[in-house]
Amino acid sequence: MEYTSMTREQLQAERQAVEKEFEALKAKGLKLDMSRGKPGKAQLDLVSDMLTVITSPEDCVVDGVDVRNYGELTGLPCAKRYFAEILGCRAEECFIGGNASLTLMYDTIAKAYTHGLLHSEKPWAKLDIVKFLCPSPGYDRHFKVSQSFGMELITIPMTETGPDMDAVEEAVKDPAVKGMWCVPKYSNPEGIIYSDETIDRIAHLKPAAPDFLLMWDNAYCIHEFDGDFVPFLDIISLCREAGNPDMVFEYASTSKVTFPGAGISVMASSVDNIKYMTDLLSIQTISYDKVNQLRHVRYLKDKAHTLELMKKHAAIMKPKFDAVVSALEEKIAPLGIASWKRPKGGYFVSVDTMDGLAKRTLALCKEAGIVMTGAGATFPYGVDPRDRNIRIAPSLPPVEELQVAIDVFCTCLKLAALEKLLG
Amino acid sequence: MEYTSMTREQLQAERQAVEKEFEALKAKGLKLDMSRGKPGKAQLDLVSDMLTVITSPEDCVVDGVDVRNYGELTGLPCAKRYFAEILGCRAEECFIGGNASLTLMYDTIAKAYTHGLLHSEKPWAKLDIVKFLCPSPGYDRHFKVSQSFGMELITIPMTETGPDMDAVEEAVKDPAVKGMWCVPKYSNPEGIIYSDETIDRIAHLKPAAPDFLLMWDNAYCIHEFDGDFVPFLDIISLCREAGNPDMVFEYASTSKVTFPGAGISVMASSVDNIKYMTDLLSIQTISYDKVNQLRHVRYLKDKAHTLELMKKHAAIMKPKFDAVVSALEEKIAPLGIASWKRPKGGYFVSVDTMDGLAKRTLALCKEAGIVMTGAGATFPYGVDPRDRNIRIAPSLPPVEELQVAIDVFCTCLKLAALEKLLG
Repeated sequence: MEYTSMTREQLQAERQAVEKEFEALKAKGLKLDMSRGKPGKAQLDLVSDMLTVITSPEDCVVDGVDVRNYGELTGLPCAKRYFAEILGCRAEECFIGGNASLTLMYDTIAKAYTHGLLHSEKPWAKLDIVKFLCPSPGYDRHFKVSQSFGMELITIPMTETGPDMDAVEEAVKDPAVKGMWCVPKYSNPEGIIYSDETIDRIAHLKPAAPDFLLMWDNAYCIHEFDGDFVPFLDIISLCREAGNPDMVFEYASTSKVTFPGAGISVMASSVDNIKYMTDLLSIQTISYDKVNQLRHVRYLKDKAHTLELMKKHAAIMKPKFDAVVSALEEKIAPLGIASWKRPKGGYFVSVDTMDGLAKRTLALCKEAGIVMTGAGATFPYGVDPRDRNIRIAPSLPPVEELQVAIDVFCTCLKLAALEKLLG
Repeated sequence: MEYTSMTREQLQAERQAVEKEFEALKAKGLKLDMSRGKPGKAQLDLVSDMLTVITSPEDCVVDGVDVRNYGELTGLPCAKRYFAEILGCRAEECFIGGNASLTLMYDTIAKAYTHGLLHSEKPWAKLDIVKFLCPSPGYDRHFKVSQSFGMELITIPMTETGPDMDAVEEAVKDPAVKGMWCVPKYSNPEGIIYSDETIDRIAHLKPAAPDFLLMWDNAYCIHEFDGDFVPFLDIISLCREAGNPDMVFEYASTSKVTFPGAGISVMASSVDNIKYMTDLLSIQTISYDKVNQLRHVRYLKDKAHTLELMKKHAAIMKPKFDAVVSALEEKIAPLGIASWKRPKGGYFVSVDTMDGLAKRTLALCKEAGIVMTGAGATFPYGVDPRDRNIRIAPSLPPVEELQVAIDVFCTCLKLAALEKLLG
């Protein structure tokens, strides 16, 4: 029976029962983490043969380059070819970075701020106001990069097919709007895949700012855990064909393919953009870790081989997502106090509660020993205007722990709803 | 006989002979590189057992941390302890970075520019003018970082004991002077070790700028190739004791201990500075490559073990430096057209020619197939006011190639001098 259909007496009885549940769970002294899209130990072990791919000096030479030494700032040619095949772009459009694509994203924004982009009239630091579009719910670390440079964050609502493009097309008429964050496939946190029409409209944007920066974080481009690989469009070609060749920077990494903390990353963009950024990046480093680049290429081989590996990750991930969604369906769905989607890839389940329950639910979770992403984190400035979005990251705990954690979550959500309904 | 003591006829005869030498060398079609402090293949092979230090999932756990996963932004505790022992500072003063200390240096300057340092009144981007002291000859990549942020580079003369401290003490009275670059041990390019008195005067500076930034690049802190390890002072304690606890950031790396392109780096500073920088760096990355951090700690073990390894590097390096200095002593010294020092550590030999010969000498080298660091590179803006300083980097070529390269260099230098003297 839905909570909103219950009488006050029924709600009070339910509250008593749920409070008892909650106290019992709290007494267990749990310490479980569903806060971050952190792969679990089984996934790390799955790829640990990577550690023995390169073992001798002879293994360290490729295309005439000794990967141990300095040089090759833009990355090994074989690593560019690898990522070009994954992303569907050209090898010369790829710049291979270190272990974090977030750093390449930060570098791009930082360079825009300190030096300007290819088509900037001046560095963004010299502008009075810089606005950035943040489709929300979205990824807190994206928003924080923009925020740390003092940008004004503009919330764009997410729809089933991606960012609300009417809102985006309207917003970019403002020359102070300098860019937009996008996670086009299995968006963080909702797991939405942008529709072809949305992507086409994005590529065809006519922003007033000549240096509009489309931040295309393709973090989950091959990260299906349910069903086959879903092909995606090459945003770089699309922008070029739409007359916006230098508008987009795309990012990806192996952080959730091999080792989260020791993978390799890629930044892909027009050849002109890559040249412009390479000149700026040449001031800050001589080269990224090419031993690790070669280790990855030798281990992952190519797209087909990588997709096979992703199936193995999927076999570990799917039971975890199933556990979360089943618990929600069983315990929360009948009560009508929240909604969610069943994603087929990515790292999150996004739950929208009745308005005003997110913070309280997560405070209760914390009390019971469950660490979750902070309420509001998926919105600009960490403020969810309706205080309802909760991001669940099921990847880290083993299934048995996860089942406990999600049970606790359901209890906390019920209790928060009952407190609210009872005023 | 010194060239300046020769008659015009003698000079002409000498020129004819040297031109013949030069043409013969050019005809060999050489392609040799003495441009960068790049370790040679023998040095890379020396440390390649590092590739098999970590081979299994079990190897990847240390102090309860799985190094394969995200987290530990400031670095592994064992890596901090390792560098603290090397640098003589405290573990909590160390922040462990990726494969390039240059990136940590850039990050420090970039943060000063975009966000300000701990004691900044405002971000440097908001100031009309920022000046930075550049002891010269110095390291071109240092100067370029400052230059890329539009700073005014102030040349400070180098003396036998480090930067001219009278000039430094005078310069820091200007509040627009925001910092200074230093390579305190085996300075790049001259191989000078700052005297204790110089270091003490630096630690006791009373700069007008409250956020004066001492960039202490201890790149060659354990890099003796001739003789025993020379102990050095801990600049962080010294600054603290002098009442300047937050003035200095120190940097070092394993780039010339293990793999140049795949080492680990450290930034050391006061605990307050490290906390301040960590907060800013947390926006740009989740963590650096901890697998590689652990690989290094397990391989290098501690200071004593690392110094043993450095002796093996020295055995490879010393014959190269001997070849360069011997050739200079034999072929150039009698002519009185240049001077140099015989360094005992670091990666360079710095040659000062008669005024006005550096560019021409290097142009001739290029013609003969020898790549050298560009003339002027060791001065701010790439302009050597006396056009005389040349940096020789003997580490990359094997000794037999190096002997050829330095012979070519001597011939080119002689020819440049003769052209000049004959007008």
